[in-house]
Amino acid sequence: MFQIRLQVFSYLRRKEGHAVDIALLGNGTVAKGLISHLQSQKNKGCELFSIRHILLKPDESLPDPVFTSSIDTILNDKDVSIVVEAMGGRHPAFEYLKAAILSKKHVVTSNKELVSFHGAELARLAQENQVAFFFSAAVGGGIPLLAYLRDTAQQETILEITGILNGTTNFILDAMTRRNLDFKDALYQAQKLGYAEADPTNDVEGFDLLYKLRIASCVAFGQWIDKESIARLPLHTIAAGDIEFFRKRDMTIRYLVNTLRNDNGFVATIQPTAVSSNGISAQIQRNNNLFLCRSDRSGEQILVGQGAGALPTAGNIHRDLQRISKGERMMINGAEPTLSADNGKLALRYYIRLSPFAAEMFPMEKVTETFETDLGVVLITHPVSVTWMFDRIDELRVIDARIFVCAIQTVKEGE
Amino acid sequence: MFQIRLQVFSYLRRKEGHAVDIALLGNGTVAKGLISHLQSQKNKGCELFSIRHILLKPDESLPDPVFTSSIDTILNDKDVSIVVEAMGGRHPAFEYLKAAILSKKHVVTSNKELVSFHGAELARLAQENQVAFFFSAAVGGGIPLLAYLRDTAQQETILEITGILNGTTNFILDAMTRRNLDFKDALYQAQKLGYAEADPTNDVEGFDLLYKLRIASCVAFGQWIDKESIARLPLHTIAAGDIEFFRKRDMTIRYLVNTLRNDNGFVATIQPTAVSSNGISAQIQRNNNLFLCRSDRSGEQILVGQGAGALPTAGNIHRDLQRISKGERMMINGAEPTLSADNGKLALRYYIRLSPFAAEMFPMEKVTETFETDLGVVLITHPVSVTWMFDRIDELRVIDARIFVCAIQTVKEGE
Repeated sequence: MFQIRLQVFSYLRRKEGHAVDIALLGNGTVAKGLISHLQSQKNKGCELFSIRHILLKPDESLPDPVFTSSIDTILNDKDVSIVVEAMGGRHPAFEYLKAAILSKKHVVTSNKELVSFHGAELARLAQENQVAFFFSAAVGGGIPLLAYLRDTAQQETILEITGILNGTTNFILDAMTRRNLDFKDALYQAQKLGYAEADPTNDVEGFDLLYKLRIASCVAFGQWIDKESIARLPLHTIAAGDIEFFRKRDMTIRYLVNTLRNDNGFVATIQPTAVSSNGISAQIQRNNNLFLCRSDRSGEQILVGQGAGALPTAGNIHRDLQRISKGERMMINGAEPTLSADNGKLALRYYIRLSPFAAEMFPMEKVTETFETDLGVVLITHPVSVTWMFDRIDELRVIDARIFVCAIQTVKEGE
Repeated sequence: MFQIRLQVFSYLRRKEGHAVDIALLGNGTVAKGLISHLQSQKNKGCELFSIRHILLKPDESLPDPVFTSSIDTILNDKDVSIVVEAMGGRHPAFEYLKAAILSKKHVVTSNKELVSFHGAELARLAQENQVAFFFSAAVGGGIPLLAYLRDTAQQETILEITGILNGTTNFILDAMTRRNLDFKDALYQAQKLGYAEADPTNDVEGFDLLYKLRIASCVAFGQWIDKESIARLPLHTIAAGDIEFFRKRDMTIRYLVNTLRNDNGFVATIQPTAVSSNGISAQIQRNNNLFLCRSDRSGEQILVGQGAGALPTAGNIHRDLQRISKGERMMINGAEPTLSADNGKLALRYYIRLSPFAAEMFPMEKVTETFETDLGVVLITHPVSVTWMFDRIDELRVIDARIFVCAIQTVKEGE
């Protein structure tokens, strides 16, 4: 379980009237967003954090003494209290943060890949070295959802977290839904606007969501969920006809992550999901994010906002800096165990669009409705176990690589 | 401006392994919710706060030594670090909290009326006496919206706050919209379910919203808005026909509060407002609340959740206790100035449903459409100054006490 920490923390040593010195690893979009935040505070006459070093890549020129290409300069500078990692990628970000922690510096990162892969080790090291390890910006961009989870987990039992946590794919789904674009055009627009990478695999196949699900689940439940055990469906085989199919049924497709506490442990899924067009999820437009947390006492709480963008993301980093300066230290325990999700007992209805040949391979006793469409055959299943369904999809994908599968959310009764 | 406080706070004196002793004023729904929260923590083996006294009314029997009918017992008990007020009403809650502060005890309250009327004085006193004053549960029940505002205001400029902050009236509007009830039946159901008081004036005429708007604005903007200057329209003259009028135009009525920063200061309104049926506000069902904060860096952030109820509300109180135990002290400055809202420059379109006789008094050059309905005449105005409109409504209400007026939100373009 998440352990409550009510110990007396030592505050940052601060010379009277002097800001806390920080070092920034990286000088990309998020780093520039943070620089802009801190500059704006300084302009208001309340400078709390001062950037002492900015680490550039070895081959970049150093136009100003604040820039350095040597991590050792930062590690050896006793005045640097906090190291903020905004380089992206697993390496050398991991090695740099490890070294910073061992040099007794607090660390903050917005790097979801890094936290998903190495968060457990960094948390353990930070705890041993009595420094802070925060990563609020790693999930939800500017939405303070990890902080909400942490505060709630200290008081209540969190039962479920779910949400739209990838802005790129929500932009694509929203463009396909409201502007009738096909997948390729919607992706192209997302790329043109800087929402999607040239190689969109991480977003459209759900790896970005996998990192985020693991991090949010760890903060919420105090457990790392083994990544191989998470049921993940890709989005990229979706076609305009799939959107249209659900539009006629007053439903809208969203790319949802979900972790649900059950008797045995956790269900964990990443799936395109048809939701009611009259619910809040369907109203999330463009690249916005939605996050829902259900806990035993506070019930359902929903947060909606900009899940990406330099300034919002830097806002979460900035709040982490404030937490450190107030004496807070950890978002997760250094010793959270890893467990496998158990998706066998969750039963969901599925929409499967596939070639007529592949459709013949699907056990028809699980099918409640069949449609012939321009894109192929559509099967709607009875509620089936997620584990069983994923085994079937693995088999079908060998026959039809363009298969598109999405879960169908049961619409709750209004009253 | 909201002042950033990054001083070194002294932590609560705590005997090793001993919980912080608190006293609870009142034993109603919210108090019982908090008792349940703390009991559940104790059962998990992590008791951080222990209830030492519960103040009952003078005429109540004292079934257990934890109960007392004497505030002095609490004030004189040196072991009590925090006093939590959950009695409701302005008096004697105000006097008790004042005395607690003067006895150097931290205070927490969920009493919106008290904070709206006496928050400035309590904040000043708490600051002078170096104790904490928190009231997160006063607005939004279990939604951590004041904490979000405070954290954001420390970093950014908040430009606008808006939302559905009264669960009772949202329950009524939702029942009228989705279940076609008329106002009286919807109110009766809300009363039966315990959402509305026997005398619903505070909810349906917007006084509850007035308190909440003032408190949220003070946390967001560091200014108390003079209550007389807030443009407030009541809801209770609404009829099924008004809902129907907007339904045909894909709009839904919600009872919104709004504070908007402009060149001169602030616009502050509490109005039934027709919003797009495809937006998030229209999806807020039953007695849920929605809160939107727009700031210069994080953009729009929306929080949705249970705006009332014993357990969610106690969740916000519980988080306040944790804040105090971590060394945090204030949500607002003790010296926030009061200023008047200036609603003269905000122009909105209005829906006015009134008697044919009253309609004749309305300046027709401001009207863009007129409808004759079963309920009377409906006028739709051009965008008009809110101040001008409220002067007209005051005149018209003398002639037609059943007049219903609501603002019409301009629907934002999809892209």
